[in-house]
Amino acid sequence: MEKFKITFYPDNKTVEVDKGKTILSASISAGINIASSCGGDGVCGRCKVIVKKGEVISHPTGRISLEERRQGVYLACLTAIQSDLEVEIPPESRLDFDKLTPEEIDLRLKGLFSDLEEIEPSKSVLSEDIFVHSPLATKLYLELPKPNLNDRVSDLERLYRQINRIQEIPIMQTGLANIRRLGELLRSSDWKVTVTLGKRNGTTEIVLIEPGDTTQKNFGLAFDIGTTTICGQLLDLNTKKVLGTKATYNRQATFGSDVITRIVYAQRQEGLEKLHHAVVDTMNEMIQELVRERSIDLNDVNCILCAGNTTMIHLLLRVDPTYIRREPYVPTANFVPTIRAAEAGIKINPRGLLSCVPGVSSYVGGDVVAGVLSCGLDKEKDLCILIDVGTNGEIVLGNREFLVSCSASAGPAFEGSGVSCGMRAAKGAIQEVKIDKNFAVNYTTIGGVKPTGICGSGYIDIVAQMLNVGLIDKDGKIRPIEHPRIQIDQEGRKFVVVFKEETQTGHDIVITEADIENIKRAKAAIYSAVVILTKYMNLDLAKIKKLFIAGGFGTYLNIDNAIRIGLLPDLERDRFLFVGNSSLVGASAILLSCEAMKKANEVAKKMTYIELSVEPGYMDEYMAALFFPHTDLAKFPSITV
Amino acid sequence: MEKFKITFYPDNKTVEVDKGKTILSASISAGINIASSCGGDGVCGRCKVIVKKGEVISHPTGRISLEERRQGVYLACLTAIQSDLEVEIPPESRLDFDKLTPEEIDLRLKGLFSDLEEIEPSKSVLSEDIFVHSPLATKLYLELPKPNLNDRVSDLERLYRQINRIQEIPIMQTGLANIRRLGELLRSSDWKVTVTLGKRNGTTEIVLIEPGDTTQKNFGLAFDIGTTTICGQLLDLNTKKVLGTKATYNRQATFGSDVITRIVYAQRQEGLEKLHHAVVDTMNEMIQELVRERSIDLNDVNCILCAGNTTMIHLLLRVDPTYIRREPYVPTANFVPTIRAAEAGIKINPRGLLSCVPGVSSYVGGDVVAGVLSCGLDKEKDLCILIDVGTNGEIVLGNREFLVSCSASAGPAFEGSGVSCGMRAAKGAIQEVKIDKNFAVNYTTIGGVKPTGICGSGYIDIVAQMLNVGLIDKDGKIRPIEHPRIQIDQEGRKFVVVFKEETQTGHDIVITEADIENIKRAKAAIYSAVVILTKYMNLDLAKIKKLFIAGGFGTYLNIDNAIRIGLLPDLERDRFLFVGNSSLVGASAILLSCEAMKKANEVAKKMTYIELSVEPGYMDEYMAALFFPHTDLAKFPSITV
Repeated sequence: MEKFKITFYPDNKTVEVDKGKTILSASISAGINIASSCGGDGVCGRCKVIVKKGEVISHPTGRISLEERRQGVYLACLTAIQSDLEVEIPPESRLDFDKLTPEEIDLRLKGLFSDLEEIEPSKSVLSEDIFVHSPLATKLYLELPKPNLNDRVSDLERLYRQINRIQEIPIMQTGLANIRRLGELLRSSDWKVTVTLGKRNGTTEIVLIEPGDTTQKNFGLAFDIGTTTICGQLLDLNTKKVLGTKATYNRQATFGSDVITRIVYAQRQEGLEKLHHAVVDTMNEMIQELVRERSIDLNDVNCILCAGNTTMIHLLLRVDPTYIRREPYVPTANFVPTIRAAEAGIKINPRGLLSCVPGVSSYVGGDVVAGVLSCGLDKEKDLCILIDVGTNGEIVLGNREFLVSCSASAGPAFEGSGVSCGMRAAKGAIQEVKIDKNFAVNYTTIGGVKPTGICGSGYIDIVAQMLNVGLIDKDGKIRPIEHPRIQIDQEGRKFVVVFKEETQTGHDIVITEADIENIKRAKAAIYSAVVILTKYMNLDLAKIKKLFIAGGFGTYLNIDNAIRIGLLPDLERDRFLFVGNSSLVGASAILLSCEAMKKANEVAKKMTYIELSVEPGYMDEYMAALFFPHTDLAKFPSITV
Repeated sequence: MEKFKITFYPDNKTVEVDKGKTILSASISAGINIASSCGGDGVCGRCKVIVKKGEVISHPTGRISLEERRQGVYLACLTAIQSDLEVEIPPESRLDFDKLTPEEIDLRLKGLFSDLEEIEPSKSVLSEDIFVHSPLATKLYLELPKPNLNDRVSDLERLYRQINRIQEIPIMQTGLANIRRLGELLRSSDWKVTVTLGKRNGTTEIVLIEPGDTTQKNFGLAFDIGTTTICGQLLDLNTKKVLGTKATYNRQATFGSDVITRIVYAQRQEGLEKLHHAVVDTMNEMIQELVRERSIDLNDVNCILCAGNTTMIHLLLRVDPTYIRREPYVPTANFVPTIRAAEAGIKINPRGLLSCVPGVSSYVGGDVVAGVLSCGLDKEKDLCILIDVGTNGEIVLGNREFLVSCSASAGPAFEGSGVSCGMRAAKGAIQEVKIDKNFAVNYTTIGGVKPTGICGSGYIDIVAQMLNVGLIDKDGKIRPIEHPRIQIDQEGRKFVVVFKEETQTGHDIVITEADIENIKRAKAAIYSAVVILTKYMNLDLAKIKKLFIAGGFGTYLNIDNAIRIGLLPDLERDRFLFVGNSSLVGASAILLSCEAMKKANEVAKKMTYIELSVEPGYMDEYMAALFFPHTDLAKFPSITV
């Protein structure tokens, strides 16, 4: 097979690949991450690159404009290599997997630390006192009575006996590896050892036996594994102290931006393995950094607790997610047994344990269960709702009596995908927008840099403000007003949010009618899901006393604007509570307490899942919500149109 | 390093080894098994070889006579290679690891099959009805309800739910490997699968999930792992039918004949690994043959249950046995957790389980516990005793009220070691002997061939008969009688049992005064141990109503002769019951019934172990027993001297 050299700029990295391979696959070989929301199917148009030199064959695509074509722009996924190439990757096509900036991390973690002032009091429901301190892995220092002719009990039974003197353990297990080392270890340590006990599927396992007293060194990790972002936390299991927190992009993003494209990708040759390694590599690097920063030995990290949506957990464990997206949408497992972390490729102590927060269904995962636990929804007397807006909007309605959940296919608009200038809530994203009567635009970006695109909260602001100043009608059509910001082409009207002179990309940042349509569909999906849950329970929407808004999305969300466009129900503003990354908070709580894990199991079992696609009335509700804010204005009394 | 070619005859096998290596190690490389009771320390003198050609350097040893030296006889373990060699291995130095002859197998298995007429009724105590049929691994055929929009429970929970509908299982575990295959498997098999459930340390594990109904194919293995001989049995776990039984030598014998030399060998570089592989290889070959003969797929063998002395179990699991022989004689584990057989290198279904019968102490192992279970001693109302004579004579005294045990260091005389013409109970061994008043000798050999040596039962007969006809006095000294069979040399008198003309070896088969002394010490060790156990319990020896004689040794044992020499107590002959390989019978019972395993755990926990070496009075009893039959003749009323 003929081979060609491909050099990528501005990285100046060269790789050699077979003739006919795509530029996207060459970039993966080069370790360069190009955005590819659709997983390389030529649909999303995110992977634009500029071929500076060399020959290629490319499939035709409507995603490249005539002007771009003239500039040598191609979709990396559709373009086959025919000679040595020089390829430039523009900033907007780039997925930066380096550490997020402090602001970006902050965005993803808000609500984690009680010392952040802006955190709502509701976050502190997960105070130290809620769950008994009984971490997934505990250490016990033992001074064993030495054997003598009157006490000749074997080494292993001696160990068990001593453990049971301290705490009664009905079913204790030990692996052969520990038994093989036991005789020498007990004697060389003068019968003074520390055992690490791990909870494992209804039994207690002696995970580790170490010489001397190492009880001070007992660390664990909690992870929120999101489709886009992965957040991890290093905890001292003895003191419950958070020793470090990291957030980074999930490297799987190279293979598609949402769970569906990932599931589709998993069915390719080696697809599942690649997705599995991508998430594991991301986590391992985070773990390495977390322990290095605290000078902690990886061997002293004894367990990891993961919360994630059902697809992410399947991919983490290298379990085929195929059936999640096939009717009747049944995952392989919601309650995954605790395994050795090494079995999943996670590098902590080789005998350390990995546990996952149980999920409810294919589209309501352990992250939602952890979220419920974290905001204490399951203990509330009053009716509450938890809304986690992402590609799928996961919604839980309930209180201490019942829990009912659903997943609304909002589409990726709020995550910056499927909208012309959309991007994730990363550096350069327009996050807050104000438009005045003269259509002057005021905005802030994440990181305070020149804008690259618009993220979810930015779009909500823009649409709300456009409604307020009469730029669009309640159907979302841009009014035919003469203004430099209002332009028209064959696809319809568009509004220029930022002119190209001010952007990083050199192009106008705009919102098109098609974008507004996408936003409308997304918000309608969420809102109608909320309505359906309340109807399912025969409850009045107005009875909801607390609305927990979870996820990074919530952090910069302007509640007024979200209600203005009809995304959130029109209730008193003080009922809305931002709970930040409630999945990570919940995972940490479960890591630190078996009682919390027990509770998570109860919540997952108790929670009813409503499949919206087959729920009678959902389509009607959805159609009714396809207006700003809604066809039935009575539902939005605070909005004066 | 200079290398030389060593050719072994009559095998005609050639190996190349480094200069300076011993002939013994060269023979191991050649795959030829030379007897070496002491494990290569130059002590036992069993590894005699004849160097036909080439140069060697050998350490001086008293084990080689002047005449032998002239013939080129060397101890293989003490002789370093200095050039290319031609070496002959005489038959008596050979350890034949090929299948035992049918007679030899019979010898080791007597008592296993109820259809063997000569088996005592007592053997049938382990009838099918004693323990509830609940094998270590069971199979369950499941027709799962297919998921639909109203029943969207995940695959794994669907499986659990269906299992729990059939039998309630409090703690169920599943490995990641099964979960990874589950989604595809359930669908491709149209939701009709067979699960293999294994009992594992207080929990139930889904060992295997197979498409369709495979419940008919559920097989297991029971093994008795002896220091010298390994016996294995293939069972149909559904029907409890024995499908095949094998016995062969334990390949570890190349590294020493008793547990102590094995433990010493284990401390050498790679010693533990070599011993581990030797026993595992022996077992794997037996398993291969057992399944081949029945055309059974190895993957349908789901579990294996092993009974063995404590050292054998340690070596099987590759656990360092060092501390077994160091005061205070504490093993690493008596209760070994159930593991995956593959972890120990045992080749059955890769996910199949391996369980071991729990032991009591370093010198009373799971084989004894299985034996107790097999003869039902723990359920007897009357006082009983179980005697398993081997290198160590393991003895259990008790009934349904109590169990007390000890291990008497009889030495290897009864196993044919440490006596001039001794050999194991293998083909060519003199097993039954009668001597008339004219000192004419009548004997039978195992296999009916020309004799090679004398095995344990043969020695007991010879000594008893010599006492009866007045050839020796009660101290064991040969009387100075003029007779062609009585010879004298610098080491004292000896009695020719078989003249060289009739033997396979071309040498006289004799019994020397030193041999008789060894037999005397061995029998004194056993007898005094029996006395000590009864004294420990303040009981009268005569109260023992049943004496179970276990092991291959018992099969040809003449009870009258054994009592005549003072090995067994002088009780009515009908109280003696041969129970054959009670360890294997017990192991099979435990394989077939969890209730039996529970019972074995109870027996192991309940049984008191008496360490004779520190037991007051043992030395006095031993000294008193160093006569034929005993210093106190009142104890042997049936013997008229």
